[in-house]
Amino acid sequence: MTDAIVQPRLMRGLRDYLPEQMQARQWIIDTIRRVYELYAYVPLGTPAMEYLDVLTGTAGESSDKELFVVQGPDEERLGLRFDQTVSLARVVAQYPDLPRPFRRYQVQPVWRCDNPYEKRGRFREFIQFDIDAVGVESALADLEMITAMCDTMSALHTGPYRVRVSSRRVLTLLLKYARIPEARAADVFRVLDKLDKLGHEKVRLELTAGYKDESGSPVPGLGLGGEQVDRIDTFLAACGTADRQRAGEGVQRRDAALARIAELFREVDGAEAELAALAGLSRQLAALGYGDDRVVFDFSIARGLAYYTGTVFETELCELPEFGSVCSGGRYDDLVARFLGEKVPAVGTSVGVDRMLVALLELGRAPLRKATAQVLVTTLDDALTDDYLAMTYELRRAGVRTEMYHGMFKRFGKQVQYGDRYEIPILVVCGSDEKARGVVQLKDMAIGRQLAAEKKLADKSQWRAARPGQFDVPRGELVAAVRKLLAEIGA
Amino acid sequence: MTDAIVQPRLMRGLRDYLPEQMQARQWIIDTIRRVYELYAYVPLGTPAMEYLDVLTGTAGESSDKELFVVQGPDEERLGLRFDQTVSLARVVAQYPDLPRPFRRYQVQPVWRCDNPYEKRGRFREFIQFDIDAVGVESALADLEMITAMCDTMSALHTGPYRVRVSSRRVLTLLLKYARIPEARAADVFRVLDKLDKLGHEKVRLELTAGYKDESGSPVPGLGLGGEQVDRIDTFLAACGTADRQRAGEGVQRRDAALARIAELFREVDGAEAELAALAGLSRQLAALGYGDDRVVFDFSIARGLAYYTGTVFETELCELPEFGSVCSGGRYDDLVARFLGEKVPAVGTSVGVDRMLVALLELGRAPLRKATAQVLVTTLDDALTDDYLAMTYELRRAGVRTEMYHGMFKRFGKQVQYGDRYEIPILVVCGSDEKARGVVQLKDMAIGRQLAAEKKLADKSQWRAARPGQFDVPRGELVAAVRKLLAEIGA
Repeated sequence: MTDAIVQPRLMRGLRDYLPEQMQARQWIIDTIRRVYELYAYVPLGTPAMEYLDVLTGTAGESSDKELFVVQGPDEERLGLRFDQTVSLARVVAQYPDLPRPFRRYQVQPVWRCDNPYEKRGRFREFIQFDIDAVGVESALADLEMITAMCDTMSALHTGPYRVRVSSRRVLTLLLKYARIPEARAADVFRVLDKLDKLGHEKVRLELTAGYKDESGSPVPGLGLGGEQVDRIDTFLAACGTADRQRAGEGVQRRDAALARIAELFREVDGAEAELAALAGLSRQLAALGYGDDRVVFDFSIARGLAYYTGTVFETELCELPEFGSVCSGGRYDDLVARFLGEKVPAVGTSVGVDRMLVALLELGRAPLRKATAQVLVTTLDDALTDDYLAMTYELRRAGVRTEMYHGMFKRFGKQVQYGDRYEIPILVVCGSDEKARGVVQLKDMAIGRQLAAEKKLADKSQWRAARPGQFDVPRGELVAAVRKLLAEIGA
Repeated sequence: MTDAIVQPRLMRGLRDYLPEQMQARQWIIDTIRRVYELYAYVPLGTPAMEYLDVLTGTAGESSDKELFVVQGPDEERLGLRFDQTVSLARVVAQYPDLPRPFRRYQVQPVWRCDNPYEKRGRFREFIQFDIDAVGVESALADLEMITAMCDTMSALHTGPYRVRVSSRRVLTLLLKYARIPEARAADVFRVLDKLDKLGHEKVRLELTAGYKDESGSPVPGLGLGGEQVDRIDTFLAACGTADRQRAGEGVQRRDAALARIAELFREVDGAEAELAALAGLSRQLAALGYGDDRVVFDFSIARGLAYYTGTVFETELCELPEFGSVCSGGRYDDLVARFLGEKVPAVGTSVGVDRMLVALLELGRAPLRKATAQVLVTTLDDALTDDYLAMTYELRRAGVRTEMYHGMFKRFGKQVQYGDRYEIPILVVCGSDEKARGVVQLKDMAIGRQLAAEKKLADKSQWRAARPGQFDVPRGELVAAVRKLLAEIGA
């Protein structure tokens, strides 16, 4: 052990989850897991490190650049996973006996060596909660992704949200409609994807002649012609993108939007079948109760990751429109083929757990709890240690989450302060006097805090009378009395 | 995307957790979490990557050598954590406002670049489930670690187990008793720690003149004298180490063992107080119901990690004596000082979750479940898709874990096969005939599997009559009928 003090610190973009945040994070994970298990997805775990050749070249150049590289013991070239989808594709190829469809959930950290933006929940390590259905070409799997995203948002009490559904296939039809060569697809989609961030004006400029940003740096344009861009504009107006809805155009009627696009695309080969399929999806969503208020078509969305091939989705919280998507995914029919040779259709979606936590905290919608303890057994008298131990284990064995105070500051005031800082609802107190009388004292710590919070309460003594802050119970009735009090205060 | 097929594979020592193992792993984690929350520990999360100077020099040279080094974006020198205790110590130093005692649990993967031995559950990535109490000098915290370990083993249904409690302070007394200079402590403890693996004979040789192992390589000895080693032997015989118990000496009586050691150490300075403290610990354990059958003193245990300073513990499964410890820990009063300058007493313990999984699987004691689904809604007729969707979502909303078959092989036989491979207990079947009659068919898949398993069952038709393998229920009673059947088959 060295003698010099080591500075306790983390690299930028990494963060600790102290107990209060960690309990909220755990609640998010437990809640999503419950939803996904109702959907009957099965869990999968994969290691953080993959061979570099497994990771690179799957999700586009920017993902490759964002890899954290790890040194293996025998000169292996390894990296930390940047998502869980690539590992899933590897697993499907590596274990050919896995039954298909393989519908799995996975909740693990991923790492991206990019520029963190912590206020918007962008970290260099963050937990993703994914579901994917592999070996499924049916659009019913896409439908299921959308409803699972909705059910997740509802279970997390996010407040109003909007799942925005797009399709790379519709975007390809758009290229035909706007007479843009398919070779330019990636460039055009990349620029369209910025609509949320930059707005119509700048996107139009970037599609055509380019512009200078605030710092004066030139943003090169794609050099599309006026008529091409007009057609893109007409299309975006017809589908009613989310930014227009936010700007006051009101909720999209999905059917009407599809009808307007069908009208525009009536000359475009293949449009009819594609739009009919989306109309079917919309109808099924409505029949299951997923209305226009929470699922919309928004074909400005292309999603950055290179592996998507069909439907893509994003989810925005209506109360945090600038925050970006908290739950995204899409169809990727070619990813498994990289490892298997054989094409295996697949669709999936991913909740950014840590982004979600930042969002819920910002909205005041995350459940915050400092302690896990329901009861703190205080220790007033060393001679009574055996009694404190007996009470503590009795309560635990009765299913009550109980801490016995083991701290180094023995004064009773310090112990109460400790219980208060953790907001532990009940204190058990027993000195030699109580011991002699065969009782223990219960202190209802919630009352004082509640009184402070509810200043409107006119007659404090009245409250106190109804539920006294502290009272004695016979030692033999400790567990029953604690249970009763916990039920009363809902802790 | 490249065209060449990438070989799907993992580095040696890494493993995937396919759904069956992953559900068992998840069950282990959920179970331990329940125990530790009853003990009122609070959760903490820290990132996988720490600065190298935070990690190195804490746990001894071998740990330093086992670090996976990660390249940061700005030439930072980072490593993957090899345990969670060092990160905890950093956190305590970095957030001085954290209330103390800080009693936290943490369950995350750790990485060690050592030689994996997968049969014994040693991997290069594995999950640890830790509890630690920081800012506690009271021996009551050590007691709590021991009982928490016992309660964890019991909750995991590990079968008989033995928590072996040792103390670096007793080992230091042993040096005095055997007249070995304290400077040799690390060497002597390192050799004693091998007792389980090598047995008395070889340990005695390594303490003295050394020996040649099976391959003929020399194992150098420490050069202790005959009387010194005799005294160590006398001591080990007096405390009745676990290997002696396994060899048939029977269960240790803790009090008797301490009395024998007190007799040996009666001339050794400081022994009386130390042994009295351990006798107190033993008495408290007994009063709380932790008897000699599951907690023993075994002072041959020193634990490898350099940071331990006091009590240390290991836990062995009696049915797998060769497997090694599945839950270990100890007191480390100096680790936080590395980051804070100030000495902060602490004690903790760690379950090796993935080792535990390997052990429970080997013992046939891990709960194995292939699916999460309770019901598979089969899809016989595309014209009835809306009906299948309605049933599926009805069941989910009623809390029944339900999958709708989305696979590419539509034949009914394939769907039954799929349900069978996942051991899904109930199939819902509805064709045009059932639809016309306003019913759906429930297939109790468990029966066939049970029949196959219980070959002793004489009259199969009798069984079948009592609980028919398939039957119709009115469509409107689907949820109620499924719930009833699930209750009957206990799924």
